Amino acid sequence: MEEERAMTRILYDLAGADPARRFSPFCWRSKMALAHKGIAVETVPWRFVEKEKIAFSGKDKVPVLVDGEHVVADSWAIADYLESSYPDLPPLFAGPGERGLAKFVAAWTDSILHPAVFCIVALDIVDHLDPGDRAYFRESREARIKATLETWSADREGHIAALRQALMPLRLTLKGQDYLGGSAPGYADYIVFGAFQWARCISPAVLLAPDDPVFAWRRRLLDAFDGLGGRALGYDG
Amino acid sequence: MEEERAMTRILYDLAGADPARRFSPFCWRSKMALAHKGIAVETVPWRFVEKEKIAFSGKDKVPVLVDGEHVVADSWAIADYLESSYPDLPPLFAGPGERGLAKFVAAWTDSILHPAVFCIVALDIVDHLDPGDRAYFRESREARIKATLETWSADREGHIAALRQALMPLRLTLKGQDYLGGSAPGYADYIVFGAFQWARCISPAVLLAPDDPVFAWRRRLLDAFDGLGGRALGYDG
Repeated sequence: MEEERAMTRILYDLAGADPARRFSPFCWRSKMALAHKGIAVETVPWRFVEKEKIAFSGKDKVPVLVDGEHVVADSWAIADYLESSYPDLPPLFAGPGERGLAKFVAAWTDSILHPAVFCIVALDIVDHLDPGDRAYFRESREARIKATLETWSADREGHIAALRQALMPLRLTLKGQDYLGGSAPGYADYIVFGAFQWARCISPAVLLAPDDPVFAWRRRLLDAFDGLGGRALGYDG
Repeated sequence: MEEERAMTRILYDLAGADPARRFSPFCWRSKMALAHKGIAVETVPWRFVEKEKIAFSGKDKVPVLVDGEHVVADSWAIADYLESSYPDLPPLFAGPGERGLAKFVAAWTDSILHPAVFCIVALDIVDHLDPGDRAYFRESREARIKATLETWSADREGHIAALRQALMPLRLTLKGQDYLGGSAPGYADYIVFGAFQWARCISPAVLLAPDDPVFAWRRRLLDAFDGLGGRALGYDG
């Protein structure tokens, strides 16, 4: 009984009205990281307003990983935890320099890529949320962007063009190599891929042109780990 | 005699009217990389129009490194050459993943940072060029940007504000760590630092606020290698 409990590995994972719709970019980072290391996990659907359900973690956001007696919240902390706890499994970072540079990729993703995706998918998120989450989402996001989601999301075609322009550093990199770290995927790829999964699981918007090197890179990651990303409930855009 | 020639190590380095003014961002990448590995080099001033002087390299741009019998052109090729030829000296990349991610840093620098710096310093470059270089520089750059340098450079304060905004991914990264790769400098740092040296050696414009984490990072790199960057002829901005 004790042993069984210790073996339980759970990831609290943001879900929409359909509990199978898992669209959080940060949760995708952790799901890909776990898959990269070959660590099985049970994902548990979680909604924005279920703060008390993860209060034990000390945080009010997912992902939260419960690995036996260890509780780890925040996608970066989860990546570090997996590296230090499972050093014999395939590394997410080959060394401290790679981890440091992945921080730059995360900073670029958080400050440039996520805002560019958000204004494309914001209203699709509302449409797919559990009714109990809608007011929370709208109020918290509109306070952050200081506008209504409708104003923020007007001109979708313009926002898609702006996103494609913002992807230039990624595109130039992937013209010369298959993954951000070169010939094999690593945590830096999962950071960026999370942004595309966020959009793919929630929105029919077509973000990438098929001849974009970013498109081929995303395809490779959609197919990775037996199609973990590609099989997820979402759209084909 | 043969041995002496084999020991000659020369870097062709872009210079202004004053041969001591060395402002190429790409040459700075190579000079920092050589210093990082502790490899002594003689730098030779080179002007834009002196194509025939480096024709032996097969390229018409600097940096060009001549290391004994080896000739290597292009800053990235020089970094790779130094890593493979001097594997026992301090590495620029701790492994292939770090090299791959440095490619992303280079893509961001080339596509976002350099254009943001160029519109601030373009006219200062003209002012400091050897008279024989001025027409070449103006014509080649105006063809590329499809505008006059004067039009491109109008509103310097606005361009500085835009640069500071564009630096957000770098700033967020350096809030949490001293260098792009974490606790120690590597080639990714020199790629970005080259852009700041480009500006510093050619323009009195003040690019960074003193309380910006990027400012403190630049200071660390200006002081590195006995102040190689900080001692270079330029401005204090």
